[in-house]
Amino acid sequence: MNLILLFPDDFVDAHRVRLSGRRLEHVRSVHRAAVGDSLVVGLVNGSIGRGVVTSLSDTLELSVSLSDDPPAPLPLTLVLALPRPKVLHRVIAGATSLGVKRICLLNAWRVEKSYWKSPRLSAANLLLQSTLGLEQARDTVLPTITLHRLFRPFVEDELPALASGSLALVPHPTAASECPRAVDRPVTLVIGPEGGFIDMEIASLTRAGFTPVTLGARILRVETAVGAVVGRLF
Amino acid sequence: MNLILLFPDDFVDAHRVRLSGRRLEHVRSVHRAAVGDSLVVGLVNGSIGRGVVTSLSDTLELSVSLSDDPPAPLPLTLVLALPRPKVLHRVIAGATSLGVKRICLLNAWRVEKSYWKSPRLSAANLLLQSTLGLEQARDTVLPTITLHRLFRPFVEDELPALASGSLALVPHPTAASECPRAVDRPVTLVIGPEGGFIDMEIASLTRAGFTPVTLGARILRVETAVGAVVGRLF
Repeated sequence: MNLILLFPDDFVDAHRVRLSGRRLEHVRSVHRAAVGDSLVVGLVNGSIGRGVVTSLSDTLELSVSLSDDPPAPLPLTLVLALPRPKVLHRVIAGATSLGVKRICLLNAWRVEKSYWKSPRLSAANLLLQSTLGLEQARDTVLPTITLHRLFRPFVEDELPALASGSLALVPHPTAASECPRAVDRPVTLVIGPEGGFIDMEIASLTRAGFTPVTLGARILRVETAVGAVVGRLF
Repeated sequence: MNLILLFPDDFVDAHRVRLSGRRLEHVRSVHRAAVGDSLVVGLVNGSIGRGVVTSLSDTLELSVSLSDDPPAPLPLTLVLALPRPKVLHRVIAGATSLGVKRICLLNAWRVEKSYWKSPRLSAANLLLQSTLGLEQARDTVLPTITLHRLFRPFVEDELPALASGSLALVPHPTAASECPRAVDRPVTLVIGPEGGFIDMEIASLTRAGFTPVTLGARILRVETAVGAVVGRLF
């Protein structure tokens, strides 16, 4: 937790917050903070600043001043075939820490149906994972995360508008062209499931304006691939 | 498991292997293979090819032919401040899947002492995690992983020789220069612990020939940072 993310309900007056639960525990056991210490804080979707500990017992009280802008967002829209629930956590937190502000979770032929029933897909859990990513990266701006259980209607009817004006790429092992590097425009990136997209899905994505690109001979896990592609593109 | 990694003891004759345990379970429950199916296999530190299932009961027998080279290694030596045991697994498997062939796990001021007592640091577990990374990426060449419990002797006496002839970089939030992109030479990369290296450690690394570089305002988890830096450098 390199930044404590504050929400409107935390404020007891204009410059004072009172925290309990996870954030209190973390400040107590990891930061090992004491009254008078100054911690990095940020208002959700707002500015970053400092919070001075004014009280630390059953609750944590901070006197807050916010002055700095959060880091620039990454101009990347990430469309992910829904990963295994265990991996979903790490992917949402990881992508958020990299600065992604738009994540679409998509069905695909090789996504197991049971994944859609996971409690980890709840709005509360997705918000928690995004929060952990922001706290890690010292950012405040939450990503928008949407679920799309039907591949074709999303790819045919929604994705072209979502990707409009961006470089639209889908990494695919047998693609003819290499993934570009250091681009200077927004990117929409579609990442397939373990086992990859089937040919018909790649054909749909190609019709929707996406270029299949290769990242080399290695097949990467989604959490590794997201970082590697972001590092390469931006 | 995009490749089944074979070890010398698996061979019952020159072209036939017999497998049990984890690999048998995976082929049965995930690949759902049957007699006659052809699977991608590779000999540890050797060639890649196909294995045709000749028997599948209490053991799995494959008739193997190996013909192709594994993918090129990544010209990267990775020196990592020892991460939390939970994270270590993912970092070893992830770095191996990216093609890293030399990993040094290093002590640092902000590495908790208890991490060095974790059973996850056993040679057997490091081998298993590397194997998982190779199986993911369809590679066969195991990384060499070494442990260095004393920061200064390693950095002063061993690291300069290890990094010789390579671009030597240490990501650090307050560095003056940006991390380079798309380099065409080997790189030695030193990645700090959660909380970062202390100033004295950065000074030691600088004396050992390392240039501190920044990756931007965001602070990334080690598993995210490794992918992002590799994507950027190569």
